[in-house]
Amino acid sequence: MTERVREILSWYASDTPGTRTNIARLLNHGRLGGTGHLVILPVDQGFEHGPARSFAPNPPGYDPRYHFDLALAAGCNAYAAPLGFLEAGAAEYAGEIPLILKLNNSDSLFSGGDPCPAVTGSVDDALRLGCVAIGFTIYPGSSFRNEMYGQIRALAEEAKRKGLAVVVWSYPRGSGLSKEGETAIDVAAYAAQIAAQLGAHLIKVKLPTAHIEQAAAKKVYEKHRIPIETLTDRVRHVVQSAFNGRRILIFSGGEAKETAAILDEVRAIRDGGGFGSIIGRNSFQRPREEAIKFLRTVMQIYAGELR
Amino acid sequence: MTERVREILSWYASDTPGTRTNIARLLNHGRLGGTGHLVILPVDQGFEHGPARSFAPNPPGYDPRYHFDLALAAGCNAYAAPLGFLEAGAAEYAGEIPLILKLNNSDSLFSGGDPCPAVTGSVDDALRLGCVAIGFTIYPGSSFRNEMYGQIRALAEEAKRKGLAVVVWSYPRGSGLSKEGETAIDVAAYAAQIAAQLGAHLIKVKLPTAHIEQAAAKKVYEKHRIPIETLTDRVRHVVQSAFNGRRILIFSGGEAKETAAILDEVRAIRDGGGFGSIIGRNSFQRPREEAIKFLRTVMQIYAGELR
Amino acid sequence: MTERVREILSWYASDTPGTRTNIARLLNHGRLGGTGHLVILPVDQGFEHGPARSFAPNPPGYDPRYHFDLALAAGCNAYAAPLGFLEAGAAEYAGEIPLILKLNNSDSLFSGGDPCPAVTGSVDDALRLGCVAIGFTIYPGSSFRNEMYGQIRALAEEAKRKGLAVVVWSYPRGSGLSKEGETAIDVAAYAAQIAAQLGAHLIKVKLPTAHIEQAAAKKVYEKHRIPIETLTDRVRHVVQSAFNGRRILIFSGGEAKETAAILDEVRAIRDGGGFGSIIGRNSFQRPREEAIKFLRTVMQIYAGELR
Amino acid sequence: MTERVREILSWYASDTPGTRTNIARLLNHGRLGGTGHLVILPVDQGFEHGPARSFAPNPPGYDPRYHFDLALAAGCNAYAAPLGFLEAGAAEYAGEIPLILKLNNSDSLFSGGDPCPAVTGSVDDALRLGCVAIGFTIYPGSSFRNEMYGQIRALAEEAKRKGLAVVVWSYPRGSGLSKEGETAIDVAAYAAQIAAQLGAHLIKVKLPTAHIEQAAAKKVYEKHRIPIETLTDRVRHVVQSAFNGRRILIFSGGEAKETAAILDEVRAIRDGGGFGSIIGRNSFQRPREEAIKFLRTVMQIYAGELR
Amino acid sequence: MTERVREILSWYASDTPGTRTNIARLLNHGRLGGTGHLVILPVDQGFEHGPARSFAPNPPGYDPRYHFDLALAAGCNAYAAPLGFLEAGAAEYAGEIPLILKLNNSDSLFSGGDPCPAVTGSVDDALRLGCVAIGFTIYPGSSFRNEMYGQIRALAEEAKRKGLAVVVWSYPRGSGLSKEGETAIDVAAYAAQIAAQLGAHLIKVKLPTAHIEQAAAKKVYEKHRIPIETLTDRVRHVVQSAFNGRRILIFSGGEAKETAAILDEVRAIRDGGGFGSIIGRNSFQRPREEAIKFLRTVMQIYAGELR
Repeated sequence: MTERVREILSWYASDTPGTRTNIARLLNHGRLGGTGHLVILPVDQGFEHGPARSFAPNPPGYDPRYHFDLALAAGCNAYAAPLGFLEAGAAEYAGEIPLILKLNNSDSLFSGGDPCPAVTGSVDDALRLGCVAIGFTIYPGSSFRNEMYGQIRALAEEAKRKGLAVVVWSYPRGSGLSKEGETAIDVAAYAAQIAAQLGAHLIKVKLPTAHIEQAAAKKVYEKHRIPIETLTDRVRHVVQSAFNGRRILIFSGGEAKETAAILDEVRAIRDGGGFGSIIGRNSFQRPREEAIKFLRTVMQIYAGELR
Repeated sequence: MTERVREILSWYASDTPGTRTNIARLLNHGRLGGTGHLVILPVDQGFEHGPARSFAPNPPGYDPRYHFDLALAAGCNAYAAPLGFLEAGAAEYAGEIPLILKLNNSDSLFSGGDPCPAVTGSVDDALRLGCVAIGFTIYPGSSFRNEMYGQIRALAEEAKRKGLAVVVWSYPRGSGLSKEGETAIDVAAYAAQIAAQLGAHLIKVKLPTAHIEQAAAKKVYEKHRIPIETLTDRVRHVVQSAFNGRRILIFSGGEAKETAAILDEVRAIRDGGGFGSIIGRNSFQRPREEAIKFLRTVMQIYAGELR
Repeated sequence: MTERVREILSWYASDTPGTRTNIARLLNHGRLGGTGHLVILPVDQGFEHGPARSFAPNPPGYDPRYHFDLALAAGCNAYAAPLGFLEAGAAEYAGEIPLILKLNNSDSLFSGGDPCPAVTGSVDDALRLGCVAIGFTIYPGSSFRNEMYGQIRALAEEAKRKGLAVVVWSYPRGSGLSKEGETAIDVAAYAAQIAAQLGAHLIKVKLPTAHIEQAAAKKVYEKHRIPIETLTDRVRHVVQSAFNGRRILIFSGGEAKETAAILDEVRAIRDGGGFGSIIGRNSFQRPREEAIKFLRTVMQIYAGELR
Repeated sequence: MTERVREILSWYASDTPGTRTNIARLLNHGRLGGTGHLVILPVDQGFEHGPARSFAPNPPGYDPRYHFDLALAAGCNAYAAPLGFLEAGAAEYAGEIPLILKLNNSDSLFSGGDPCPAVTGSVDDALRLGCVAIGFTIYPGSSFRNEMYGQIRALAEEAKRKGLAVVVWSYPRGSGLSKEGETAIDVAAYAAQIAAQLGAHLIKVKLPTAHIEQAAAKKVYEKHRIPIETLTDRVRHVVQSAFNGRRILIFSGGEAKETAAILDEVRAIRDGGGFGSIIGRNSFQRPREEAIKFLRTVMQIYAGELR
Repeated sequence: MTERVREILSWYASDTPGTRTNIARLLNHGRLGGTGHLVILPVDQGFEHGPARSFAPNPPGYDPRYHFDLALAAGCNAYAAPLGFLEAGAAEYAGEIPLILKLNNSDSLFSGGDPCPAVTGSVDDALRLGCVAIGFTIYPGSSFRNEMYGQIRALAEEAKRKGLAVVVWSYPRGSGLSKEGETAIDVAAYAAQIAAQLGAHLIKVKLPTAHIEQAAAKKVYEKHRIPIETLTDRVRHVVQSAFNGRRILIFSGGEAKETAAILDEVRAIRDGGGFGSIIGRNSFQRPREEAIKFLRTVMQIYAGELR
């Protein structure tokens, strides 16, 4: 085990050896194993956006085995998906790659009001499928936030007792926020803080813009001259907001976009002290070989092999 | 054990020895140990107001270990925080300072309607982390008050059975009250009474103004000439309202303000028979040495070493 | 055991010996012990109306021990209060007087809409504190009535299984009724019936006026010439409505008022076949000696020692 | 917290912060607080040998409060006793001294066959009484050993989950051993090992003699020339047998004997690397003042203040 | 993942992906990772034979961390030990090597009658400590066999539901067998069959002799001319007896002996189709460097790098 992984594990000294073992498995697998950096493949878009929107751009992705294989071939640290997708491949790929079971999901056939995902899996499902962690999405800013916070509280307590790690996707959204505010720097930093306070071991947030949503926050950012001009600055601030860097913070790629833009974002994450990326659509919606090449480039940047 | 602590413990004769032991631990730790006075460091602002608003004024506070250390170095009686902040330091600081796990919290990314915090921790979490007490916030005046009262009822019953103490933050707020009414003397006294009736062992309220919110109360205050002119008078009345002083009542400092003003408040709390202070932003938002000096001054006032 | 108490107990033959034992304890304690009459001291006003409105008229009442002592000194059958007030004296007064734990309470800091109290205690709390009964308030006429009926259903079921008695405060109030209707004779009788149907062992209602609220009822009262002119008539009718007198029905004193007026009411209750009184503000808001003298007079009336 | 206590706590890194907190409480209380040494007062002889045999030599010991007071006055780290003795003083002495609830006990009114104590308390009893640890006796060598090992397995798992420490009294006895063998060096070392393997945090064994009980062991002790001539040698070997000194190992005083002899034993425990003593009959069967003086001398030896 | 590991996992198609993942972890770790061969370090001798007999030959082994380190440095597939030994290192070595929690153990301070180990750990302990499998010893031939079979039945059912693998040590012993019979070829084959029928995923037996214990078996072996002359023959027969090689069967080294003799046995295991070795005393009782060299030689033989 590398010194860096050992250092990261030391931040979780209140957790059981079981949970620490599973965090280590996440950190030690794949091409970035041992570096303290992670690239995770998440595929919950089939549930969230529907199959055609998710898989038509690259039809092999309709097959659940495709994503296990992609994550494995590209050397990702882990593959994260909802219950059905994991059940459809966990046996065939047992022991090949760390799995994260997403325990809640929203579909978009009903979309009235604020977001509130359904709980679609359990901690025991995660054990049964051989996962290293549970995943859970919270939507700070939603009028249903308390329901989600209460659910992850109970699920995280159980997961920790049973030796699993807890990954929280913290996505500000809902009637408490403007559209622009969802990725505002103050909101992103706050989202990271909330997930950490809820007891997450790993936290995923979106890359923030320089916009500041909350008036009360704006005063503070200005008064203390918190640097938020460059993306690197903003990543650094969000990392700081996740217990001064003592929680593993990773960033999502967001919507599909140009490769060069994504790689620039990855450089900013790395330079700002972020721990890695969780890249869904930008990987599985490309042709397999292109996706693998792309993910490996991302990993090379995190590994410092590429500027 | 001092006579004063023994006297205070005698008020909790219906509680188990386990709960009384944990109340004693709170009363016997730190520079005020044994005096019957308490100064507690609470840090839930990261969750409640966001990281930058909380920690930018003194950036070391982004690190969860900072607050354990500050509470310890200043000689506080206890440190209170939400799940994530306690998990991130409870192992390293095991046995060094009494801990209080805040079991509910609100974030400010959604703020429509009346306040209703999410439940973010459990009594078993408190045992697992070695806490002496659970903490819980109620918002009398909120349309969701019954939900909170019902939650603390269940959590307090479980905590008492398992030998923990129960600390209730009683903060009147919501559509039942005017803004001014939140700190009105009748409302503050009522808030203390409600927390006591709900079975709290320790109660935290805000310092009250001389304003009287409720018409029915106004008649009574006038008819019986209840003294509420000075802050000391008002503290005395709130202490009386908490079972005639037979429940440990402490006061919050409120928003960050001038040192002199706070120290005057502390003198009023002491002279009115209050048991102590719970001081968050006014301590952890100052530079460490200044904060320690400030907290020690507060303690000297409570200890009667300083007028 | 007197024949009268034996007779009363015979009405509860479906209940366990444990519950009957606790009803017997209520009936056999104090100056009215054995007579089949009861005078109970209830003190939930601190929670319901706030501390100053409740205790400023007689400040020793801020101290929870005061009320145990008052009930005991006056020779009441029982003392009823919310969780906090009982916890603050139950150990010191263990075994001295039957206790009733009020399991729900409303505060008046929020008062929008129909009444719906919070559940603030449990059956296990009642066992732990040595109570003979649980108390619960329902508000027939409130849009939230079903929520309350459902709560008392569950609590009563549990209380009966665990050998406790069930006391229901049945107070018509809410958007289903006019202000005058709250104490209308048809409504009071109906309130007694609902509580009895919900399985209450003891029922408390307010003294009714001669007003008839419901048109459908009015026809019946007139057609069958039900006597409701005098208070005694009306008490008799409400007693009849509580299973023809086979449930223990007691009346509340209502707001503080002149002694003579209250004693007249007591005579009417006695003469109409009511079982007793539950007198809060009219006792604990008087100076102690006056209160004791007053309560003893009430008891003398019930005992037939005084006309 | 001293470096030594911090070092000892580091051996329990698989445990929750709660358990580590309670181990710290044991190590930090009393005159030896912070030194890493412990002197514990255990009083289970009333149950084990009967009252007169236990308390007639010093009749104040019939009163359960006597032992709380003795442990406190002498500055012991903790007081250990069965359920009844703790219940009879835990409220009065709440918060004054760490308590250990002995969860199993044997009486000597039936003594046929191999020893097998009854389980006489629960983990929840320990929480309710405010204890820092559970205590449990195993009798390796008894034909009922498996029953005891199975009981402590379940109790220890529950205690650890609830944040308590686990103290195992490991007393070889039964038809598998000769009388002399009960304190043989190989058997004592083995007893310490068994307790440690069962997951004990603290282990109590008897001081061993130079006798070797088992033929298979004798060969090894001779072949490897394990030093067992002096008591110090033997203590060192038993400490080594408790995970190379990485579990807290304390020694019992055994039967009442001369002071000088005991103090010599204490010196041997200290010099051999033992962590302390658990001294029952030799303390509570002496007159109070003499017992306090005696225990303080023991503590001075451990503290290195006395040769 | 290699084809061989994939083939082995295919035998466990009735198991959950979680269990298969943990079997894969066992097969993929260390120097033999991916070969389908395993060398496991088991250290339960401290419990089974006592500390001096176990660790005096190489005293660093008294320290529980030594064995984690040895297994890791030598490149073993896993480390197996009782609760205490795992708890004393699982946090420090989290994620470094697959762990197997031995759930039952015998000590040798009582040895009357047939063998029957105590249950000393739980499936939840295994999860908490981050183990990949539970281990359990059965003694076919013991009059207590049914008790053990019943215990492993329940524990295995729970372990499988929670995604763990099940390793059974099948050691014929007890009043049903002669001393020579314990390692008789018919008995060893039978022991493997029983463990497989009980649902074990991995089975450990002792190397068999050419002796045939049971008369009824003897006839069959002779009639069908089952080859049992060489050790390789006998290994092949036992492998066949474990579901025709479709369960992972490993062999124990037995008592400490000469290196050359062990390496010959390893060759026989390999050539007979055995999956590997579980080597305790012959590894941890040697000096560290010698042990590592020895274990690596064993691995080279299994890997086919050495004849």
